[in-house]
Amino acid sequence: MAVDTIKWEKSVLTIIDQTLLPEEYFVKRLDTVEEVWDAIKKLRVRGAPAIGIAAAFGIVVGVKKYHAENIDVFKKKYEEISDYLASSRPTAVNLFWALSRMKKILDNNLVCGVPETVKKLEAEAVDILEEDKDICRGIGKHGNEVIKQSDTILTHCNAGGLATADYGTALGVIYSAHEAGKQIKVYADETRPLLQGARLTAWELMQSGVDVTLICDNTAGKVMSEGKIDLVVVGADRIAKNGDTANKIGTYTVALLAKEHKIPFYVAAPSSTFDLSIDSGDDIPIEERDPEEVTCGFGKRTAPVGVKVYSPAFDVTPSKYITGIITEKGILYPPFKKSILETIR
Amino acid sequence: MAVDTIKWEKSVLTIIDQTLLPEEYFVKRLDTVEEVWDAIKKLRVRGAPAIGIAAAFGIVVGVKKYHAENIDVFKKKYEEISDYLASSRPTAVNLFWALSRMKKILDNNLVCGVPETVKKLEAEAVDILEEDKDICRGIGKHGNEVIKQSDTILTHCNAGGLATADYGTALGVIYSAHEAGKQIKVYADETRPLLQGARLTAWELMQSGVDVTLICDNTAGKVMSEGKIDLVVVGADRIAKNGDTANKIGTYTVALLAKEHKIPFYVAAPSSTFDLSIDSGDDIPIEERDPEEVTCGFGKRTAPVGVKVYSPAFDVTPSKYITGIITEKGILYPPFKKSILETIR
Repeated sequence: MAVDTIKWEKSVLTIIDQTLLPEEYFVKRLDTVEEVWDAIKKLRVRGAPAIGIAAAFGIVVGVKKYHAENIDVFKKKYEEISDYLASSRPTAVNLFWALSRMKKILDNNLVCGVPETVKKLEAEAVDILEEDKDICRGIGKHGNEVIKQSDTILTHCNAGGLATADYGTALGVIYSAHEAGKQIKVYADETRPLLQGARLTAWELMQSGVDVTLICDNTAGKVMSEGKIDLVVVGADRIAKNGDTANKIGTYTVALLAKEHKIPFYVAAPSSTFDLSIDSGDDIPIEERDPEEVTCGFGKRTAPVGVKVYSPAFDVTPSKYITGIITEKGILYPPFKKSILETIR
Repeated sequence: MAVDTIKWEKSVLTIIDQTLLPEEYFVKRLDTVEEVWDAIKKLRVRGAPAIGIAAAFGIVVGVKKYHAENIDVFKKKYEEISDYLASSRPTAVNLFWALSRMKKILDNNLVCGVPETVKKLEAEAVDILEEDKDICRGIGKHGNEVIKQSDTILTHCNAGGLATADYGTALGVIYSAHEAGKQIKVYADETRPLLQGARLTAWELMQSGVDVTLICDNTAGKVMSEGKIDLVVVGADRIAKNGDTANKIGTYTVALLAKEHKIPFYVAAPSSTFDLSIDSGDDIPIEERDPEEVTCGFGKRTAPVGVKVYSPAFDVTPSKYITGIITEKGILYPPFKKSILETIR
C-alpha cells in the first residue's frame, strides 16, 4: 500500500492529516516550521520514520526564508529551528536521527554560502524520504521470511504506510506477505487513547485488501488464549543497544501476553530506530500525553471532570520478550547486544 | 459509598441509568418487563449482583399485571417473563441465580393463589436486594484484611456500588479499607469498549474521596512494571467449580500481568457468583457485543465503515492466576476446588 503520508513536491510539503482519518482524507500543506512542529506534536503526522522525514523537511521549510542572510545569522536561525523541531516529540529517535543528518549537511556546506547550503539541505531531506521507501521494502522482504502461508498476525498501533513514506515497517511485513500471495489475517489492537489501530491500521489494511479484524486492546489476551494468533509484529520508536524497545503504550503488555502464549513477538524497524548511545530501555525518555486524550478524546467526555490521568505515550519492552528485530539489513536475533553491534552502523 | 443503583419503593422500580454517567445522573423508572430487559441488555444497569436484583424485580414488575388470572395462565406468563429476562445477558450467573430463587418462591406458593404468590415474589426480590447490601459489606470486611496501610490497588471495569445494591464487591474492599483509615490509592483501567472504569469506577471513587488515577487498559503493564501496584482486585460475573473466573474482557490480561510482576491478584464476588454446575471456565458462555460499541462508542465513528470487529464482553481468568477469592463468607485460597466446595453452598 503506497499512500502519500508525507510528500515534497515543487517545494511544497504536504501530509495526510491523520487525526481526521478514517472519516476524512485531507491533505494538509505545512508552510511554516510552526505548522510542522504542530503536525508532529498533534500526531497529524506520526510513526517514527514519518516523524523523522517531517522534521527534515521542517528544517528545509524553516531555512528557505533565510536564503540571503549571512552565514552567522543563518547558522543561528538554523539552530533555533532545529532545537524547536526537536522539542515536538521526545521519544522517537528518528526525529533526532534526521535532525542530526541535516546538521551534518549544514556543517559540511556552510563554507559554500547560504543558498548552496539550503539546496543541499533540501536534497538531503528528499534523500531521507526516498531512502525510507527503500528501507520499508527491505524490512518487508526480510519480514516476509517469518510469515507462513496462512498465518494470523496481531499488531498494535500503526506501523504502516501512514507511519512511513509509503509502505510501513510492521505493516510492510504484512503487505509483503500479502503481495507474495500468502492468505494472512490480521488482528489490529485499536490502541487507546488515540486509536491509531482502529483509525489508521484497519483503514490501511482494508484499502489494501488484507483481512483485518479490529479488537480492543484488552482483548488481545483472549484472542491469543483462543489460539488465533501465530505471531505478533509491531513497530518501534527507539531501540537501545541491548534490544530494549520503546513503542506505543501497550506494546509491553502484548509482548508479555505473547510470551505466556508462546507466540513469536517481532519488532520491525529501520536501522535509524536504534539508539546506540543508550545501553538499555531505562534511558529512553517517555513522553506523557494530555489527559484530555483519555477523558474526552473523541468529542465526548467519558470520564469525570478533574479525574487524575496517567497517560504515557510509550512503554519499553525488554529485549528478553522479543523474538527478533526485522530491519532493512536483515533480521536480528538474540543475543541482541551482539547482533545489533554487528549489523547496525 | 451508597448509591441507589437499583431501588424498589412504593412498588416502583428505578435505576440510575449508567449509560449516561458521569455526564448525567438520571434515575430511570422501569415500568415494564421490556424496560427491565432493555436496561440489562444495554447496560443501563450492570454488574453481576445488580443484574440479578434487576432480574428479580423484572419478574415482579412483569407478574403484577396478572394478579387476578388463574393459576395455569399465571404460571405460563411467569415462565415467558422469566425466559425473556434470562435472554438479556448470558454470562452473569447472578441473573440465573436470582431467577432460580424467584422460581422456587413461585413453586412453593402457587397453591395459595395468584395474589399471595405475587406478594411473596415481591418480598423475595426485596430480600435479594437487602441481602446484597449485607453481602457487599461482608466482602468489604474480609477484603480489608489483605489491604495494607498505604497500598495502591489496580482494578478493572466497575465492581462498585454501581454494580450492586449499594457498596460494591471489588470496590467494596476498597471502600472498606478507605473507611478503616488506610491511605490507599487506586488505578482504574478505563475498560473499553464501554468505559465502565472511566465513567463509573472513577466517578464512584472520586465521590467517596478515594485517590484514583485513570489509565487506559493498555497502560496497566507499564504501571505494574514501574512498581506502582501492590495488588489487584476485580469483580466476577461467573466463577466455575475450579475457581476459573469470567469477568469483563481484559481481566485475563491483568491477571497475566500481575503474575509476571509478582503482584497478588484477587477476585471479589458474592457466593451467588459461583456456578457449581460447571467444572471449569471452558463451559462459561461468553456474550459478544455489538461492533458499534467499538467503532462508534464516543459519539463519533473511530474506525472504517464495514471493518470486522471481535468484541467479546468477557474473558476467563484461569484459577492458577488468582491469589484469592474474597466472598462474604471469607477469603478462598487455592486449591480452589477444595475451598469452594467447603465454603460455597
